[in-house]
Amino acid sequence: MRDVVIIGIGQTAVGEHWDKSLRHLAHEAIAAAMADAGIESADALYVGNMLSGELAGQEHLGALIADFAGLRGIEAMKIEAACASGAAALRVGMMAVAGGLHQVVLVCGVEKMTDTIGSMTTSALALAADQEYEVSHGASFVALNALLMRRYMHEFGVKHEDFAGFSINAHRNAVNNPYAMFRQPISQAAYVKAGMIADPINLLDSSPVCDGAACVVLAPWEHFKNRARARILASSVATDSLAIHDRRDPLTLDAVALSSQRAYAQAGLRPQDIHFFELHDAFSIMSALTLEAAGFAARGQGVRLAMDGEIAIGGRIPISTMGGLKARGHPVGATGVYQVVEAVQQLTGQAGANQVRGATIGMTQNIGGSGATVITHILAAV
Amino acid sequence: MRDVVIIGIGQTAVGEHWDKSLRHLAHEAIAAAMADAGIESADALYVGNMLSGELAGQEHLGALIADFAGLRGIEAMKIEAACASGAAALRVGMMAVAGGLHQVVLVCGVEKMTDTIGSMTTSALALAADQEYEVSHGASFVALNALLMRRYMHEFGVKHEDFAGFSINAHRNAVNNPYAMFRQPISQAAYVKAGMIADPINLLDSSPVCDGAACVVLAPWEHFKNRARARILASSVATDSLAIHDRRDPLTLDAVALSSQRAYAQAGLRPQDIHFFELHDAFSIMSALTLEAAGFAARGQGVRLAMDGEIAIGGRIPISTMGGLKARGHPVGATGVYQVVEAVQQLTGQAGANQVRGATIGMTQNIGGSGATVITHILAAV
Repeated sequence: MRDVVIIGIGQTAVGEHWDKSLRHLAHEAIAAAMADAGIESADALYVGNMLSGELAGQEHLGALIADFAGLRGIEAMKIEAACASGAAALRVGMMAVAGGLHQVVLVCGVEKMTDTIGSMTTSALALAADQEYEVSHGASFVALNALLMRRYMHEFGVKHEDFAGFSINAHRNAVNNPYAMFRQPISQAAYVKAGMIADPINLLDSSPVCDGAACVVLAPWEHFKNRARARILASSVATDSLAIHDRRDPLTLDAVALSSQRAYAQAGLRPQDIHFFELHDAFSIMSALTLEAAGFAARGQGVRLAMDGEIAIGGRIPISTMGGLKARGHPVGATGVYQVVEAVQQLTGQAGANQVRGATIGMTQNIGGSGATVITHILAAV
Repeated sequence: MRDVVIIGIGQTAVGEHWDKSLRHLAHEAIAAAMADAGIESADALYVGNMLSGELAGQEHLGALIADFAGLRGIEAMKIEAACASGAAALRVGMMAVAGGLHQVVLVCGVEKMTDTIGSMTTSALALAADQEYEVSHGASFVALNALLMRRYMHEFGVKHEDFAGFSINAHRNAVNNPYAMFRQPISQAAYVKAGMIADPINLLDSSPVCDGAACVVLAPWEHFKNRARARILASSVATDSLAIHDRRDPLTLDAVALSSQRAYAQAGLRPQDIHFFELHDAFSIMSALTLEAAGFAARGQGVRLAMDGEIAIGGRIPISTMGGLKARGHPVGATGVYQVVEAVQQLTGQAGANQVRGATIGMTQNIGGSGATVITHILAAV
């Protein structure tokens, strides 16, 4: 297997792009990444996307976007793993380069969630959950996460306000990210007063519905040493049941544990070696559960990292350093690629005011459903 | 890169499975393939599927099916390339094994198109075409193919009845395939009299709406020599514009030519070295255009292979040897895997009455849209 490096990154601003369609967003990110890498062609394009069929009446994004980006003819396909689609596409691209099947590969995550009917987006997101055993009973995706949060609060004697630190940290970091959707800080008081969505999850526990695209260019280390921005040390996928009731323990994300452990083993690292962690904070509760299962806190203690400020830039384990899903935004199938773009920014010292000092090892983790697909990458500075 | 072999195959009967959901169909094919391979676990599962979001309200099939098949925890994801999703999943599985990232990989194509509202299936299939430039004008997927067929007839002076041989051959071969949907022969008279769908495409030019799942088990040749059923000599993907009006020449499937040429180059073979060809006969016109672009006939001459009987078992280039998309059936995201399962049956001498004598090299080709994604595999007997 060949070592794989990232030689270029590109992203669109995350937000409500009522004037741009899927193909335009994807093209913008791809063109930026190709310019950044200094390349004019590529061997393959792997697209991460979850909802284009449901929300745009368009599948077959691989060929569509390859053509629209001026790359007609190259290998292209779409990869889907619910909200982990972006990282799943990266996983496939990484396999293609590591295995020697391709030299220069584009991985583009793209999602367009606005410019459709609001209720359609909520029902489309429920495609990530188990249709026959969860959704058919009326559970929306946020409702399933609300059940987890309620149970966590009950089990560990935690109050809703104890989660505030996750959202405050994300918004604070997004202020300095020009690509982020919400560039304003929020207060503890605003968090507590935010409108309820699915009790106990309120508006400021939740990542937004939005549009965006991000792209990375992959290539083999051996031929692209001069252009390498970051190395991929580990890439791992683990799965669990979609239906939460089918799990051993709803408050332990087994696939997060498995995916993280596989990644640590590949990289020869431990949690304490990770300098920052772009985790999947689609809802505050997912941050707490992730920090526990990934080895950064004991069971029931993940929320304390937010309460104690250990997740801030300069803290023990900085998370959501460019705003995370909460404040950069969560265009679902694009998110996993945004996380990696931001990790490269950190590892190349381009994170501006949010720079994690001396960061040479970063981890990204993209989650599909409420923990059913978990894809972890560990990246290193070159 | 490691040589990749197929060590097990499994399939469900193709048909209208009103009593089985997506997960049940997939599990049935996976269990059959695992039993055939003599394995009880696998490292990864790549699912080919196009329409589950639209027709079943379910995305996230990778984790869902891995769990339902008793493989909770393994790497899993869904691959989509419209009607070429099955072969796209095979392509990803092949990369994982060739690159040394996994040892034993399952590739499962599954589609459930019945047990939904008829008009929904037609509009769902249009997700393969360009929403903004084709579908929004009211063109269904069969309508787009009908435009191609009409143009072909006009350009080359061919009559509709000249295409009959494709469907007659497919139905004749399906008679002996217990997994095929339509196991009755059809006559030239029946073909000519069949009800019109989108002029000039009639019912017997068209592959059916149906359900089914197929699975292959991949592994590295170096460790599984004893269990190998067939070797993958070539695997290639090529793309073109989704929108037909954007192509250089609507009657030349450039992506078929490109994908085929890449595959021939990988395998070091020419068209005349191929003993049988499981092509993508979603509509009769696609068979004619494919035979031309893949190098088996000159431009405008593909239809003559059907008229002259050269596509029959025992002919110059047998196609659709187990019934093809037309008569075995076309559960869209599963089709690419069915083609490979059938190729393995031919290469191992298990094709029964349809055996192509002395077949040691077979080619499969799965097409997404009306030629926008074309995925070719060449397989060899071991």
